[in-house]
Amino acid sequence: MKSADRWLLPEGVEEVLPPQALKLETLRRDILDLYQSWGYELVVTPLIEYLDSLLVGSSHDLDLHTFKLTDQMSGRMMGLRADITPQVARIDARNMHRNGPARLCYADSVVHTRPRGLLTSRVPIRIGAELFGSASVSADVELIVLMSRTLSQAGIGPQHIVLGHVGLFRGLVAAAELEAEQEAELFDAVQRKAFADIDIWLDEQVENINLARMLKGLCRLSGDITVLDEAEQVLAHAPPQVRQALDELRKTAEAVQKRLPDHSLGFDLSELRGYQYHTGTVFAAYTPGYGRAVAKGGRYDEIGQAYGRARPASGFDADLKILARLSSLEVRRPASILAPDEDDAALQTMVEDLRRQGEVVITHLDEGEADAALLKELSCDRRIVAAPEGGWQLVTI
Amino acid sequence: MKSADRWLLPEGVEEVLPPQALKLETLRRDILDLYQSWGYELVVTPLIEYLDSLLVGSSHDLDLHTFKLTDQMSGRMMGLRADITPQVARIDARNMHRNGPARLCYADSVVHTRPRGLLTSRVPIRIGAELFGSASVSADVELIVLMSRTLSQAGIGPQHIVLGHVGLFRGLVAAAELEAEQEAELFDAVQRKAFADIDIWLDEQVENINLARMLKGLCRLSGDITVLDEAEQVLAHAPPQVRQALDELRKTAEAVQKRLPDHSLGFDLSELRGYQYHTGTVFAAYTPGYGRAVAKGGRYDEIGQAYGRARPASGFDADLKILARLSSLEVRRPASILAPDEDDAALQTMVEDLRRQGEVVITHLDEGEADAALLKELSCDRRIVAAPEGGWQLVTI
Repeated sequence: MKSADRWLLPEGVEEVLPPQALKLETLRRDILDLYQSWGYELVVTPLIEYLDSLLVGSSHDLDLHTFKLTDQMSGRMMGLRADITPQVARIDARNMHRNGPARLCYADSVVHTRPRGLLTSRVPIRIGAELFGSASVSADVELIVLMSRTLSQAGIGPQHIVLGHVGLFRGLVAAAELEAEQEAELFDAVQRKAFADIDIWLDEQVENINLARMLKGLCRLSGDITVLDEAEQVLAHAPPQVRQALDELRKTAEAVQKRLPDHSLGFDLSELRGYQYHTGTVFAAYTPGYGRAVAKGGRYDEIGQAYGRARPASGFDADLKILARLSSLEVRRPASILAPDEDDAALQTMVEDLRRQGEVVITHLDEGEADAALLKELSCDRRIVAAPEGGWQLVTI
Repeated sequence: MKSADRWLLPEGVEEVLPPQALKLETLRRDILDLYQSWGYELVVTPLIEYLDSLLVGSSHDLDLHTFKLTDQMSGRMMGLRADITPQVARIDARNMHRNGPARLCYADSVVHTRPRGLLTSRVPIRIGAELFGSASVSADVELIVLMSRTLSQAGIGPQHIVLGHVGLFRGLVAAAELEAEQEAELFDAVQRKAFADIDIWLDEQVENINLARMLKGLCRLSGDITVLDEAEQVLAHAPPQVRQALDELRKTAEAVQKRLPDHSLGFDLSELRGYQYHTGTVFAAYTPGYGRAVAKGGRYDEIGQAYGRARPASGFDADLKILARLSSLEVRRPASILAPDEDDAALQTMVEDLRRQGEVVITHLDEGEADAALLKELSCDRRIVAAPEGGWQLVTI
């Protein structure tokens, strides 16, 4: 290995230098303050825990993305968290002891064995909010609006919000009485949006031609709000739970449209992201210039059962590093004041007072005069100097 | 495994619930703001990186505490960071391109294979500051004062600051021309403060009786500032680099005493914590009721060499979780306002305005009236209700 290569970071692993790290911190605070103002309480989940606890109710995909570690103390297998949502669901189920809704939020690093997409970090910082204990459409609407506010707070816009509902696909698959393996095959084709494959597969495998027709139609239903009217026709004779899902989706869409009049709303009725754990409405936020969802979430009512307390649940998250990258906010190192390295009590009092007032005061440690290069490196625009009449004074450089 | 055990977290691994997590966040912000006001710039280092990069210049102990992972993408061995200081030193050496001093700070999780002490977390949150590019006593003084301010900011007091200097022991060992194995044996006995063992070992292994006498004396030198006068006598004829170390320590002590008149100062001249990488003054802060150092640090000038750019370096860190545990500050969930779940535009405007003013406004999602138990769970002391004259009003509960 060449000595220069030795310091290369692994692919998809990055360090954040100033002033970018300050931007990350600023967004982190602003967004957590936003969540707090909506009643969401912060939790900090463990970076490592036993694997069987970490992967409960989660997807095979999450398993593959989770680094495995042996616990030297117990000999048991641990995992490095690749997702925070299941940990927060466990906290709601086992620690919060709330009868009414519990609103929780977080901002912490996760680690993935492989990047989840092109140019995606393996060490994203997940920032998100989860709402437990309410199965209402209003809960989903609250989360979708809060997801959108997260992007606005980060200075990201315009936004395109895309809604879906996994209950549509799930209900049709249940009615068609597909076996698990068949469902996986169809799921795979739908994920790829391979319409020709889907049609052939449905013609071959689904006897009930009405259901096959509805599934074919569903996979093509994406676009603006008129998609919901088309869905009414395509799914007019669908099983009751499918009709109910469509009804929920429409109510959600109407409420979101009203609350977010400035953002465009889209629909993708065969969006099956997180199909293994999502149970209802799913939502994502997009912005021009970034090909993937900036933030995404959905309803996952059934996860609580695995933790011994079934509670309705819905939530979303985003990668703070991506929010910072897309953010139009300018965060700069604040201009600072250079102070001489003297033990004088009056000087020290002046320095402490300035710092308390929010100023950045840097002590000039080196021997000799501070040159222009150093002042620039330290972003100094003022300095403290001995006053001619004794004492100290602040002068502009 | 019993189903209840399934959710137990591994030993030394904890989750932080509200309102404790809010306290952690509050301290984190206050301390990072303090560091910023002293000119320290935030960096975010990677949670995982190649092992040979992560463990450069570090101790065998750190190696043992570092979880190892295989990188699926490169096949190389990676480590989960157990310490942040070496990563920050690399950032200074390779990324900052500063000629003058660079001040960097951080607040992030690290993971240890085993707890470093009794009742110690395996997932501490390290918060600290490092100063590169100045070998002056003033740099060490700045860091010691900032370490003390960190505790004060966290509401921890009274403080006892203990200073040492590894140059004393190192210089005597060099003069005695001990082999690496001998040095390790003596180091081990000194760490254990096993005075009888130390004396026997020195009588047997060190021919120069003056050096043996000085080493015996050094190991017993701990206590208040009078220790420095005793050291003057014990080390009167020590080699120049030992005399210089003692001189540095005295200058540091005098300056620290002046800057921190309210805190007691102690000395331990055979304190060899971090002996493998420390090169000069070492310092730690203690507080009654906690048996270990709350924060600690020291000078480690030679680490930069490993990164291709030798720069003087000094710094300290603390575990934010311990700071929060010892903190006398009270952080509570803010009282909130309950708002009805209505789509009315005037209501939504009122809610958004209140949130912008710093209020916590929670939407009442459930059907039916909010009972006393729910209001208590949500910390509500006010609610928004329909005004008799139309519109909405805020009423105290």
